[in-house]
Amino acid sequence: MDTQSNQFLIPLNTISLSNNTSFRTYRTEGMYCIHEENYNYKSGIQKLRQPWVDKRIQSGDTNHSQLYYAKRNIVTEEMLYVAKREGFTPEFVMNEIKIGRAIIPSNRKHLELEPMIIGKKFLVKINANIGNSAILSTIDEEVEKLRWAVHWGADTVMDLSTGKNIHETREWILRNSPVPIGTVPLYQTLEKVKGKVEDLNIQVFLETLEEQAEQGVDYFTIHAGVLKDFIPLTNKRITGIVSRGGSILAKWCKYHNKENFLYEHFDSITKVMQKYGVSYSLGDGLRPGCTHDANDEAQFAELKILGELTHRAWKDDVQVMVEGPGHVPMNLIKENVELQEKLCSEAPFYTLGPLVTDIAPGYDHITSAIGAAMIAWYGTAMLCYVTPKEHLGLPNKQDVKDGVIAYKIAAHAADIAKGHPGARERDDLLSKARFEFRWEDQFALSLDPETARKFHDESLPQDGMKHAQFCSMCGPHFCSMRLSTDIRKEDQKLAGSNPVSE
Amino acid sequence: MDTQSNQFLIPLNTISLSNNTSFRTYRTEGMYCIHEENYNYKSGIQKLRQPWVDKRIQSGDTNHSQLYYAKRNIVTEEMLYVAKREGFTPEFVMNEIKIGRAIIPSNRKHLELEPMIIGKKFLVKINANIGNSAILSTIDEEVEKLRWAVHWGADTVMDLSTGKNIHETREWILRNSPVPIGTVPLYQTLEKVKGKVEDLNIQVFLETLEEQAEQGVDYFTIHAGVLKDFIPLTNKRITGIVSRGGSILAKWCKYHNKENFLYEHFDSITKVMQKYGVSYSLGDGLRPGCTHDANDEAQFAELKILGELTHRAWKDDVQVMVEGPGHVPMNLIKENVELQEKLCSEAPFYTLGPLVTDIAPGYDHITSAIGAAMIAWYGTAMLCYVTPKEHLGLPNKQDVKDGVIAYKIAAHAADIAKGHPGARERDDLLSKARFEFRWEDQFALSLDPETARKFHDESLPQDGMKHAQFCSMCGPHFCSMRLSTDIRKEDQKLAGSNPVSE
Repeated sequence: MDTQSNQFLIPLNTISLSNNTSFRTYRTEGMYCIHEENYNYKSGIQKLRQPWVDKRIQSGDTNHSQLYYAKRNIVTEEMLYVAKREGFTPEFVMNEIKIGRAIIPSNRKHLELEPMIIGKKFLVKINANIGNSAILSTIDEEVEKLRWAVHWGADTVMDLSTGKNIHETREWILRNSPVPIGTVPLYQTLEKVKGKVEDLNIQVFLETLEEQAEQGVDYFTIHAGVLKDFIPLTNKRITGIVSRGGSILAKWCKYHNKENFLYEHFDSITKVMQKYGVSYSLGDGLRPGCTHDANDEAQFAELKILGELTHRAWKDDVQVMVEGPGHVPMNLIKENVELQEKLCSEAPFYTLGPLVTDIAPGYDHITSAIGAAMIAWYGTAMLCYVTPKEHLGLPNKQDVKDGVIAYKIAAHAADIAKGHPGARERDDLLSKARFEFRWEDQFALSLDPETARKFHDESLPQDGMKHAQFCSMCGPHFCSMRLSTDIRKEDQKLAGSNPVSE
Repeated sequence: MDTQSNQFLIPLNTISLSNNTSFRTYRTEGMYCIHEENYNYKSGIQKLRQPWVDKRIQSGDTNHSQLYYAKRNIVTEEMLYVAKREGFTPEFVMNEIKIGRAIIPSNRKHLELEPMIIGKKFLVKINANIGNSAILSTIDEEVEKLRWAVHWGADTVMDLSTGKNIHETREWILRNSPVPIGTVPLYQTLEKVKGKVEDLNIQVFLETLEEQAEQGVDYFTIHAGVLKDFIPLTNKRITGIVSRGGSILAKWCKYHNKENFLYEHFDSITKVMQKYGVSYSLGDGLRPGCTHDANDEAQFAELKILGELTHRAWKDDVQVMVEGPGHVPMNLIKENVELQEKLCSEAPFYTLGPLVTDIAPGYDHITSAIGAAMIAWYGTAMLCYVTPKEHLGLPNKQDVKDGVIAYKIAAHAADIAKGHPGARERDDLLSKARFEFRWEDQFALSLDPETARKFHDESLPQDGMKHAQFCSMCGPHFCSMRLSTDIRKEDQKLAGSNPVSE
C-alpha cells in the first residue's frame, strides 16, 4: 500500500491566548464543524476514507481489518492518520496494532470516519452512549446527541437504540459521525424476533450483523462469553445480570438448555467482521451491577472466555477490545486490569466506569469518574461514560454533556498519571494563566469555557474583572496568587532582573 | 471522670423502607433539626456539652484538650459520644486519641457541639468551607450555608470569612453549629492591622486567637511551617504560593527578614489551645496550587516542620491534625500520605481534594473528588471539599451542596475500599432495592433523594412508574434486571422454593 502520497489534515482545536501564543488540542468533533448552528444532518459529512477504501477493494482485499494489514507490515492511511493525530511514528502505531495492544475501529463502509486509535500506549479515550429506547426520543434528537457528544469530546459513540426506526436512526448517525460508531447488534436482533428471546438464533443474528456492518458500524459488542454454566454463578449476587445483552443470552440459554449461540458460532461472526473490517468489543455480559458483586466468580469466569475469544479473533486477523465493569470498589479495581491484561494478552480494555459506590444515583457520573480515572491509570484504554441519569432514566443533552466532561476529566487525569507525552502541557498553560490572572485564557484552556466564564461572571460580571488580580472567592486583599506574585517581583527587583508576569 | 451516668441520644437518620425494615445512618446535622423551615438562628441550638464542661471547670482542669484526658486514661463524655456514634468501644476511641491518631475537635466554649472524631480508623470525614469575602454575602446567608452544609453531610465546617462583621458572623455560626467549626485566625488578624501584612505580630495574633477561642472555635489552622528559608523554593513553581495564609506569612517574612512568628511563638499559641481545648490544624501554607508543583521541595520541606510541630503540640497535650494538598496527579498521591504518616507519626491527615488535573475549572468538585477518594483510601482522615466554583468565585448554596455531595461520595468510596465495618451496608440495601424495582427505597437510600427522584420523574412522572419493572433508559423490553429476575424465578420454581423478589 502506497503510504507516500497521503498527507492528511488532522483535526485540531486551536486555542488562541492573550499573550500571542496558541495551543492545539486533539479535536474529536473532527474537520467538518458539525457543531454549527442550522446543521442539516441529511447532507452527512465528507467521506474522507473513500479513496483509501476504493483502492483496497480494487486490490481485491477480503479482510478489511487494520490487524490484517499490520500483520503484513502494511502501514495503512488509517495508521498514518492516527500516528499524526497522536504524535507517534506510523511504525509504532502499526506495531501496537500488530501485537493486538491497540485497535483502529474502522468499518470500510464508514467512509466519514476520521480514524482514531484505542490502546494503552495512546491517549485514553472515552465513549458516549446515545440511542433511543421504546419510550423516548427521535432520530433528530439522536443525531443532535451525537454532534453534541463529539463536540464535548467523545472519542467514539455507541448507538444503543432499541426503539422505533432503529435502522434509519443508525444510518444518520453513521453518515454524520467523524468518530467510530459501536452497537450491540443483539438489540436489533431481538426486535426482529418481536422481543421473544427464545426465538433468537444465529441466522437472524448474522443477518442483523451484515445489515449493520453494511451501514458502517465500526465495532460490535458481542456477548460471546456468557456461557450457560456461568449463569448459576450469578445467583449469589445482589443484582444478578445487569448487562442487557448478558441477561437476554442467559434467558435464551436457560430456555433452550443450550450453549450461547454467539459462542458456538463465533467463527461465523468473525467472517462478517473480516469482510467489513469491524472490530470486536467482547461484551462483559456478566459484569457486576453493584459493588457487592464485583470481581466474583461469574465475572472472572467470563473474562477467561473473553481471553480465549480474543486469541481466536486475532488468529483470523480481526481487531479486538474487551469490555469491563461496571461497579467495583476502589480496592478491587487494579485486579480487574491485571487479570484482563493477562487473560487477554493486553487487548485494549474498555470499561464502564466503574462506579466505586452505589449510594449516589443522580451523581453516578461522579461515582464512576473516580473509578474510571483509576482504572485508566492502571491501563484501561477506553472509558465508557456514565451520565448523571444512569439507573434513573434516558439521558438528555445536558446529561450527555455532564457525562462527557466528567469522563474527559478522568481520561486526562489518567494520561497525566501515566506520564503520557505532552499530557500536562494544557494543565501547565492553564495554571500559568491562572497565576497571571489571564482570566480569558483560563476560560479558553478549560474543558468547558462557557461554564467557567459563567461561574466567574455570576459574582463579577463586569468586563474589567476579566483583568482583576482577584476573584470573589477571596476578594482583593486575600488573593494568595497576587501576594505570591508581589513576593516574586520583590525578589527579582532585588536581583535586578525582570518580574515574572509582565 | 464519671462515665457511668452518661447515656446519650446519638443523632441518626432513620430511612424507612417499603419492606417494613429501616436503615440508620450517621447524621451530621445533629439532634436539633436545624434544617427546618422558618428556622431562627438567633435562638441557637441546645447546649449539649454544658454539664460536661461545667464539671471539668469545677474540677479545676486547665488543659481542656481531649488528648490531655486520654493521656491520663480518662474516657470523656466526648469519647463516649463518638464511640457510640461510630460503633467502637470507648477504650478504643480513647487509645486512638492518646496515640495522636485521632482527634475530637471540641473547644470547651462550643457547648452546642455534638462530638465527632477524625482519624483513619474511623469513618472518613468531610469539611465544608463557608464564609464571606470582602465582596459578597451576609451573616444570614452564612448561617444558612452552615445549616445547608451539615444537612447534606458536612462533618465539620470552616468559617473562612474575611469580610465585614467577621466576629458576629462567627458567633452565630458557632451558636448554631452541631459540628466542629474551624477557622484560619490569621485572616481576622490581618483585618485588625488594616490589611497591612507588615504590621502583623504575635501579640495581635494571640489576641485574635483568644477572641476566637472564647467564642468556641474548635480547630485553628496555623501556618507555622512556612519557614523563611522555604520561600525561595517556590520560585520554580508555576503558581507560587496559593495558600492565603502561606502567602501572607511569606510576605511578612520577606518584609522583616525574620522567621515566621507563628513558628517562633508556637508554644505561646499552644497555651491558648490548651486553655480552651482547641485542636491544631497545622496548615500547609506551601501546598501546590497546580499539578506541576505537586510533591516539590517546598511542600515536603514544610511537611517536615509540621511533623516537628506535631510532636511539640503532643508534648503539651494538644490535639493535632495536619493539612495537605491541593493539586496532585494520581500517581503522586500515595507518596503524600506515606510521607505525612511517617513525618507526623500518623496524626490525622486533612487534605484539600487533591485535584488530579487543572483543566476543568467549573468542575473542580469532580477533578478533586477523584483525588479525594484515593487519598482517603490511602489513609487521609478528613477531606476538605472543593466546590464547582473553586478558582472562579465564592460558592453559593447550590455549589455548597454540589461540593458536599461529591465529597460524601469520595469519603464513602474510601470507607468501602478500606473495608470500614458496615460501610457497604447502605450500598447493598440500595442495590437490592434497585434489583427489586423498589424505586422509592432506592431514592430514600441515596445521598440526595430529591435529585434521584427528580431525574427519574423527568421521563416517567406517573405514580405507577414508581412500581414499574423498568425505567426510561432501557424501556420495558430491555430491562436486564427484569430478565435476570425472571431467570431466577424460573430456577427457583424448578427447585421448588420461593422466588427471590416476592
